[in-house]
Amino acid sequence: MSSSLRSRIYTELDRLTLIDPHSHINPHAPASTSLADILGYHYYTELAHSAGMAKAAIEEPGLDPKEKVRRLVEQLGPLENTIQYSWLIETSQRLFGFTEKRVTADNWETLYDLAAAKMAEPGWEDKVLSESNIESVFLTNDFDDPLEGFDTTRYIPCLRTDDLVFHLAKPEVRERLERASSTSLTGAASLHAAIGVLFERFTSRGAKACAISLPPDFSPEPVDQATAETAVQRMLREGITADDETRRVVSHFVFWTLAQFCADVRLPFDLMIGVNRGVYADGVYQGQDLYDSRVSLIQYRRLFNAFPQVTFPISVLASVTNQELVSYAWIFPNVVANGHWWYSNTPSYIEHDAAGRLEAIPQTKQIGYYSDMYKLEFALPKFAMYKRILAKVLAERFVIDRDWSEEEAVTLGHRVLRGNVEAIFRV
Amino acid sequence: MSSSLRSRIYTELDRLTLIDPHSHINPHAPASTSLADILGYHYYTELAHSAGMAKAAIEEPGLDPKEKVRRLVEQLGPLENTIQYSWLIETSQRLFGFTEKRVTADNWETLYDLAAAKMAEPGWEDKVLSESNIESVFLTNDFDDPLEGFDTTRYIPCLRTDDLVFHLAKPEVRERLERASSTSLTGAASLHAAIGVLFERFTSRGAKACAISLPPDFSPEPVDQATAETAVQRMLREGITADDETRRVVSHFVFWTLAQFCADVRLPFDLMIGVNRGVYADGVYQGQDLYDSRVSLIQYRRLFNAFPQVTFPISVLASVTNQELVSYAWIFPNVVANGHWWYSNTPSYIEHDAAGRLEAIPQTKQIGYYSDMYKLEFALPKFAMYKRILAKVLAERFVIDRDWSEEEAVTLGHRVLRGNVEAIFRV
Amino acid sequence: MSSSLRSRIYTELDRLTLIDPHSHINPHAPASTSLADILGYHYYTELAHSAGMAKAAIEEPGLDPKEKVRRLVEQLGPLENTIQYSWLIETSQRLFGFTEKRVTADNWETLYDLAAAKMAEPGWEDKVLSESNIESVFLTNDFDDPLEGFDTTRYIPCLRTDDLVFHLAKPEVRERLERASSTSLTGAASLHAAIGVLFERFTSRGAKACAISLPPDFSPEPVDQATAETAVQRMLREGITADDETRRVVSHFVFWTLAQFCADVRLPFDLMIGVNRGVYADGVYQGQDLYDSRVSLIQYRRLFNAFPQVTFPISVLASVTNQELVSYAWIFPNVVANGHWWYSNTPSYIEHDAAGRLEAIPQTKQIGYYSDMYKLEFALPKFAMYKRILAKVLAERFVIDRDWSEEEAVTLGHRVLRGNVEAIFRV
Repeated sequence: MSSSLRSRIYTELDRLTLIDPHSHINPHAPASTSLADILGYHYYTELAHSAGMAKAAIEEPGLDPKEKVRRLVEQLGPLENTIQYSWLIETSQRLFGFTEKRVTADNWETLYDLAAAKMAEPGWEDKVLSESNIESVFLTNDFDDPLEGFDTTRYIPCLRTDDLVFHLAKPEVRERLERASSTSLTGAASLHAAIGVLFERFTSRGAKACAISLPPDFSPEPVDQATAETAVQRMLREGITADDETRRVVSHFVFWTLAQFCADVRLPFDLMIGVNRGVYADGVYQGQDLYDSRVSLIQYRRLFNAFPQVTFPISVLASVTNQELVSYAWIFPNVVANGHWWYSNTPSYIEHDAAGRLEAIPQTKQIGYYSDMYKLEFALPKFAMYKRILAKVLAERFVIDRDWSEEEAVTLGHRVLRGNVEAIFRV
Repeated sequence: MSSSLRSRIYTELDRLTLIDPHSHINPHAPASTSLADILGYHYYTELAHSAGMAKAAIEEPGLDPKEKVRRLVEQLGPLENTIQYSWLIETSQRLFGFTEKRVTADNWETLYDLAAAKMAEPGWEDKVLSESNIESVFLTNDFDDPLEGFDTTRYIPCLRTDDLVFHLAKPEVRERLERASSTSLTGAASLHAAIGVLFERFTSRGAKACAISLPPDFSPEPVDQATAETAVQRMLREGITADDETRRVVSHFVFWTLAQFCADVRLPFDLMIGVNRGVYADGVYQGQDLYDSRVSLIQYRRLFNAFPQVTFPISVLASVTNQELVSYAWIFPNVVANGHWWYSNTPSYIEHDAAGRLEAIPQTKQIGYYSDMYKLEFALPKFAMYKRILAKVLAERFVIDRDWSEEEAVTLGHRVLRGNVEAIFRV
Repeated sequence: MSSSLRSRIYTELDRLTLIDPHSHINPHAPASTSLADILGYHYYTELAHSAGMAKAAIEEPGLDPKEKVRRLVEQLGPLENTIQYSWLIETSQRLFGFTEKRVTADNWETLYDLAAAKMAEPGWEDKVLSESNIESVFLTNDFDDPLEGFDTTRYIPCLRTDDLVFHLAKPEVRERLERASSTSLTGAASLHAAIGVLFERFTSRGAKACAISLPPDFSPEPVDQATAETAVQRMLREGITADDETRRVVSHFVFWTLAQFCADVRLPFDLMIGVNRGVYADGVYQGQDLYDSRVSLIQYRRLFNAFPQVTFPISVLASVTNQELVSYAWIFPNVVANGHWWYSNTPSYIEHDAAGRLEAIPQTKQIGYYSDMYKLEFALPKFAMYKRILAKVLAERFVIDRDWSEEEAVTLGHRVLRGNVEAIFRV
């Protein structure tokens, strides 16, 4: 019974057209042009590398896309158990018409050609979105992105601020900010003003969120004016040779300034908490980051108290932080649980974490899922994975364990899948 | 099969009359007098506030109980998914005769009146206990509670010691202690003596436990006599202006003294580990506390080694600490796992944590559940929730996975539900 | 369906003959000679002690084996729920022909005699291995073990290095090293050379791994030559009176040297991360160790980066560290997930941890299980427990949730049970 129950709930969840509240889509090239775009996704390159493939074989300069696919396919065997491999197969079957369960040395060219043909069809981008039941997608835009040349109702801008908070000491970042804001940076006031210009441009272009990823040891705090002024000026003078404390103060000043602007212009501030960059120095591109799971939302206590008017959709990198997220979202009106991020975006962690959220956070304060994708073709299998797990949790923990009707369960599912995205980001 | 198996085991578990080993019941007003007592439980006010209700609307001075209920009901929609909401509905249906699955703007007055009528019946307190299958309930008594005017075999005193350990620098706490102990505090010896008087009164009035809740950074340690003397005298002189180190030393001295008295009078010492008070400063009453899940039972290593003769029933706030609790209870004869506390008192965490305990801690060393309730009407739905999960774990992990008979599973369930409460607290 | 599916998969997994990649078997006395060897396993003595049995009753000098068993059996009642008790029963039934479900005061002598008779049969060791479907077993050898007098293809040597890294300041450890390496220790160079001799002997005797258990606060780092020289010389002069920093530096120097030799001779380096020794000072033999679950694999970042050519099969003590292990094994080519260790070796933690690994780590980079046993009779019930859980995870999370065929699921199971042991340790 449970199995057909799950499948009925899944079917109902799957009918819904969704808004994807976080991705890395390039709106000027949202869809793939060859299977190399699919297999070049860091999940495949890093797993293939982890399973023994040389980085040089993957990242050889000028490598032909087809040859890249051929090489990666040779190394896919060790990954066949992973959920990431299942995304590849589901996409290949449902979007490209591939009919096999594995991609092998014998059949990859068929798949390559099938994909190439589909991707070359006019309207492929529209078709992918429509088959994936996705109507719009949040972007991750550099702060100096001109946000021009694309439909911002389909591809919704989001101001990504990692560079501003953590890399402003680098001359190129500072110059990008000066150019993007038409502001000459001379101290804390002009830095504040420059950030204000960014918020103005982003909101005028339809941005619906500000976002940042944060290392496990970050603990936001306000900085008094004099301290900020001294630190900003020193950083402007000394750049990356500025001492750690100076750079730390500037980070805190910029972060707090961002939160203040989010309050002023009513933008939710997505916090993605817990990543350490570059842990595996010789890893493949985008396959170098890991984490220290010893992080606590208590580090954000001052922030949550200081900005009651800002909504903070929060993603945590490690499942062991999920219960804190549940508890903080249950207590703080401005804390919202957001999706299943990266290393927690695998079925057993999603199941565990989603169950904890659905039974203790108000149903209006949780965003079920985002794709985090770089190419549109991944929305389908990633959301499908989530919807299957959501259907399982709803079937087992609500219909069976708590005697809910299927209709009630589906309504809750629809809310976390879509309704809350609309309400929280006001799209 | 699993579903009817669970239901058969549940039925057997549900037959048992229980002793609730931890609550916040006021023995002079144990039952509710209106639905405002039910909806005023911090679980509803904090969740309603988290979902958008203004604190002022909930905590308006002089607010009429019925108006309070009306306002809260308006905000219940967002909470309908939560397990806490299900407690409200189960209580309403089973104790008040409510027949609907939701409390809404349209039906709340019916429920209000049903509840009021029941609560006004003579013997309501007895009836609630009897319908809940509860025969006695542990209290949480302030150290200066006179413990008079109630039946201490039904409402079992428990000496709560947070104020002594953490707030003795406050003049009012010190005065309460001096009054309650008829002792003038002049130094470590008189403080020790005063605490001794409390233990004497509590045990003479049938107290069965000493209890305390502890922040994540607390790590008990003995204090030598000279250091204690200096710190206690300074704290007595300086009160809340005493420096942090002085207050820290006094905390440790008092805590260690409590453990010593527990040894002397053979009282179990309930440790509730992990809460940070007042994290959300503008939260509703009792809805301000959160935690840092980075806590370890290794912090209690000296305590467990120093007091082998004291039983420590331990509750942990975060599920990520549960495995440590399992391991420490498996190794230390004096460590006992106790219930599912607060933010871990939701089904998926209970299921995970109970399973871990039942398969690795000796069956005599685990207390299944306590209600933590403020009003008697909550024992029924909270224990029912626990018994359903316990039945699920016993069915799936013992009968199915380990080939136990149903009778064996039920016997284990009865032991953690009741037998161990009797044996460990000697009631 | 799920239940018969699980049982079909279990049957197929159970057919396979295994290599046990980690144990504490004494190759000169691998099998038990009486039930006292079975009940003397620390799991029973520590749990019986935890449940109330005096340490003195267990560890009385000169205690007759039969009397020891009689005493322990008296205290087994409280442990009947534990998975460890189920190992005892399964072994008793399947290896000794015991027919009851419990060992009691009434039947223990029957069991004692049954076991004694079996153990006295010629070829008992072979029979246990054959009935357990085990063909070879990794040992845990002291660094000065002569590795002689046993079949190293059946009992595969493994160089255990805790003493070298953490106890070299003790005169007896130093002397053992000097003797074993025929090297006089005078400084860092001779220490390096002495360690080299050990590696040479171990590899010439067929060792397939180097191994160590590590406390939660250990964070390996390289030591420059001058610092190492100074510290080693001081430690050689001062022994256990050497200051903490000196001993810390020597630990790091030795550990890094071990990793270097693992690289040179191509031995995997098993890291068992997270144990604190002697936490419960008055515990029974081997029942004194616990942990602080606040440990992170980020502490090993320099090691993993510095030795890409060394494979590190990693065990973590606490389930809360398992997701880090999943993520690090997914990113670092040289990190492999290894078994379910000690306090995480109970069904619900295994199930949770195995599921996380199977869906995100390349299938070639995970070793399902090792027994950690001291006597051969425990391989059967421990591997059986693991295989049942593995069958459950494969049935529920692969066949049902992901639509795999049973054959595919069994193939994955076989790989983590045996194939990877062969490939990773090159046996």
